[in-house]
Amino acid sequence: MFEIGNKTFGSRLMLGTGKYPSFEIQKEAVKASETEVLTFAVRRMNIFDSNEPNLLEEINLQKYSLLPNTAGAKTAEEAVRIARLASGSGLCDMIKVEVIGCDKTLLPDPFETMKASVQLLNEGFTVLTYISDDVVLAKRLEDEGIHAIMPGASPIGSGQGIVNSMNLQFIIRQSNIPVIVDAGIGSPKDATFAMELGADGVLLNTAISGAEDPVKMAEAMKLAIQSGRLGYEAGRIPRKMYASKSSPESGMIR
Amino acid sequence: MFEIGNKTFGSRLMLGTGKYPSFEIQKEAVKASETEVLTFAVRRMNIFDSNEPNLLEEINLQKYSLLPNTAGAKTAEEAVRIARLASGSGLCDMIKVEVIGCDKTLLPDPFETMKASVQLLNEGFTVLTYISDDVVLAKRLEDEGIHAIMPGASPIGSGQGIVNSMNLQFIIRQSNIPVIVDAGIGSPKDATFAMELGADGVLLNTAISGAEDPVKMAEAMKLAIQSGRLGYEAGRIPRKMYASKSSPESGMIR
Amino acid sequence: MFEIGNKTFGSRLMLGTGKYPSFEIQKEAVKASETEVLTFAVRRMNIFDSNEPNLLEEINLQKYSLLPNTAGAKTAEEAVRIARLASGSGLCDMIKVEVIGCDKTLLPDPFETMKASVQLLNEGFTVLTYISDDVVLAKRLEDEGIHAIMPGASPIGSGQGIVNSMNLQFIIRQSNIPVIVDAGIGSPKDATFAMELGADGVLLNTAISGAEDPVKMAEAMKLAIQSGRLGYEAGRIPRKMYASKSSPESGMIR
Amino acid sequence: MFEIGNKTFGSRLMLGTGKYPSFEIQKEAVKASETEVLTFAVRRMNIFDSNEPNLLEEINLQKYSLLPNTAGAKTAEEAVRIARLASGSGLCDMIKVEVIGCDKTLLPDPFETMKASVQLLNEGFTVLTYISDDVVLAKRLEDEGIHAIMPGASPIGSGQGIVNSMNLQFIIRQSNIPVIVDAGIGSPKDATFAMELGADGVLLNTAISGAEDPVKMAEAMKLAIQSGRLGYEAGRIPRKMYASKSSPESGMIR
Repeated sequence: MFEIGNKTFGSRLMLGTGKYPSFEIQKEAVKASETEVLTFAVRRMNIFDSNEPNLLEEINLQKYSLLPNTAGAKTAEEAVRIARLASGSGLCDMIKVEVIGCDKTLLPDPFETMKASVQLLNEGFTVLTYISDDVVLAKRLEDEGIHAIMPGASPIGSGQGIVNSMNLQFIIRQSNIPVIVDAGIGSPKDATFAMELGADGVLLNTAISGAEDPVKMAEAMKLAIQSGRLGYEAGRIPRKMYASKSSPESGMIR
Repeated sequence: MFEIGNKTFGSRLMLGTGKYPSFEIQKEAVKASETEVLTFAVRRMNIFDSNEPNLLEEINLQKYSLLPNTAGAKTAEEAVRIARLASGSGLCDMIKVEVIGCDKTLLPDPFETMKASVQLLNEGFTVLTYISDDVVLAKRLEDEGIHAIMPGASPIGSGQGIVNSMNLQFIIRQSNIPVIVDAGIGSPKDATFAMELGADGVLLNTAISGAEDPVKMAEAMKLAIQSGRLGYEAGRIPRKMYASKSSPESGMIR
Repeated sequence: MFEIGNKTFGSRLMLGTGKYPSFEIQKEAVKASETEVLTFAVRRMNIFDSNEPNLLEEINLQKYSLLPNTAGAKTAEEAVRIARLASGSGLCDMIKVEVIGCDKTLLPDPFETMKASVQLLNEGFTVLTYISDDVVLAKRLEDEGIHAIMPGASPIGSGQGIVNSMNLQFIIRQSNIPVIVDAGIGSPKDATFAMELGADGVLLNTAISGAEDPVKMAEAMKLAIQSGRLGYEAGRIPRKMYASKSSPESGMIR
Repeated sequence: MFEIGNKTFGSRLMLGTGKYPSFEIQKEAVKASETEVLTFAVRRMNIFDSNEPNLLEEINLQKYSLLPNTAGAKTAEEAVRIARLASGSGLCDMIKVEVIGCDKTLLPDPFETMKASVQLLNEGFTVLTYISDDVVLAKRLEDEGIHAIMPGASPIGSGQGIVNSMNLQFIIRQSNIPVIVDAGIGSPKDATFAMELGADGVLLNTAISGAEDPVKMAEAMKLAIQSGRLGYEAGRIPRKMYASKSSPESGMIR
């Protein structure tokens, strides 16, 4: 169980809703993942186009919390505008702030990200902010009062997994707000690792939607995150350069 | 489900029985892990000392397959002798061949390992052989007819995890017998990763017995292995240097 | 040869001047390194204390460019004050902007770093800015007109080497100003690697001053950087999963 | 300076002679590398075909030691036959034993490698043996009396660099004979790293012959190996999780 703002979640997996092969597969994958939070790009929502099927229309809003994101925004101004649009639709009070500063890498802009986060905090939003793994940036955002910090494991959609586990650990150890590792997760071991490092949750999309079998991968990710959390709580053994026997030799027969 | 020799297993986790803080914790951890195979050092078995509690006396032999190992052997001759002792006790027909060639690293001796494996095959054992991650050694052992190959992730008890995922993949791809990644697993992500690479199973001991909370870690490992297997079957996304958006921009509002 | 502002350098190694075992060793190490740029913390300079030996008093200012840094500053204001102090001493017009945002990791503060850089640009300094490896932050600073960007390989003094080679490459590829990899270099291979990635130079200190034999390490670093640069220019072979023979078999005798 | 058998070498770089774009480039690269040992596949030598240019005919045998290898051999018998052929040509008494056990990965066969090495030792050869990074195999070969051990960094021609630095270190620390890291080197940093780990030398081929500019890469590799050796001798700083300032704060002005 962990909390963001005034919400409590049992599942530590947050799921993006983009790029599934079909609507049916998406629904099954969402179910298999047992996620409680669905994130979606407001700009991509078909709220203005009733001709296309829309996951959001069909899902049980009692069961899922919606986390709209500001994907597509390149400035704080755009992000704020998108957030207000989401809020206006009445679906949610949480917003994931995502302001991209580079078209090639899709990495976020720290300045516009900060500006948008502060503005949306002032407007009463529950703010979850997507950032690079910059440790001091994470701290400054927490100082401003955001509700959760979402450092990237690696670039969005890259599947590179956790590149800098040191920075993620620094962020996790310094944070008094939930840390959700977001972006770059490629396979279950990446999600397990993020949780072992002490993250409060993981947000992913492509790793499931782009898998050969998204529904099966959704279940894999569910278990990966449960496993990593348990592993974190259980306290792993230290790494040693030289082995020690796992079968103590006292009392051995010869 | 996978098979070794004439046995079929539902769980892909094989569990060592050494170095638990207490007998009670060990029993609970074994239960939480849902393993079906327990491995133990024959030389350490209290079969000749009825004063000490012995896990093997108390466990339900219907529920667990026993996999005695030849830990402590430094030569093929010693390994064969230990295997015969295990067989003589009537508990099992499987044997894990482990012949250590270096006291510091506990890494195995390829020559004595091969000799012992061949001899025990000739004597009718179901042979599972622990090796380094030497790809051609794995092939040669398979050619001799062993029933499963057990390459190490890193030195026994080191907790270093999977150091050479390339060699493990080479072994997995070339093998027509089960591949059980054995030794060096430090945390759940390592087990998940081994399974994602396509291993048939994982054998571990210290990662659970040496954890701060072995029972919780046992559950974590159970989930890790299930997750990694599902991830392998589900087909992960490729790694990309440059990101691609997970939220396609067609139909975007401006 | 590479240029920063209006200066041209033959050596691509910039050397910090802190924490040497002795003044004699420092002088020899500086000589062995063949560096042309010495960086020093203005706050640590003994310019106000003539009782202690001071490297800067003795070195040939014709031979070395001085790169004062703002180490110790936690705000833009402090950094600007330190830079002005350095400038006032008449030794240099270059300044390395370093504004630390975290006492534990010594990682830089992106906001104060930006503010100080812009202010010092306005005051006519040649500005080299130390940052984390945040790709968009690097771009934004370049947009402001700084003269070189100095992303960290890993935290100052950690010796962790290059943790995120992907981000460094992103920064190098996008930059039209020199990229100097700064902080975290632990051994020659790290310096070689930074240069292979296409960096224009490397700044290091502890890796030499803290080595068992700083003078020998200084020579090692000199060669490492030359080697990495040549390797970058020479164009390395691609990585392949499966080997190919380096001895072609055509014309083989049997 | 290091010795193999009764020979002393100033350069720690051994160079393969296969797959250069042209004979001219090869000659220049060999020169730029300052190597003193050239290795070549006996089976590929044009000693029986005087129509093709042959590096070996033209090189100054006073300047280079020749290290023929048994590339192409898949059994001990073939390797021994090739070695005798090389010896019969009167060019050399050193032989690099290379017995490949897998066509896809070109990884060596430990059993045939051992057999060939022992046989050639008995026949009076100076034996340098190419192996995987199996620690105990290295020890067993040293016990048999070989003159140098050549563990692979990664598969021949793969350019993957040093995958398992732990095993290489185990081999280096346990060895009383020279350790030459052989195969898999992709770029200068890999060569530097091998030397930093304490290797006595590096053997490479494709990393130079397959580079865009082999002559420049040859020089890069020369420097890389010198740098790594110096770095090893100089004693690197330890890695630390948390940074320490390289600019001590005592005596700071505020």
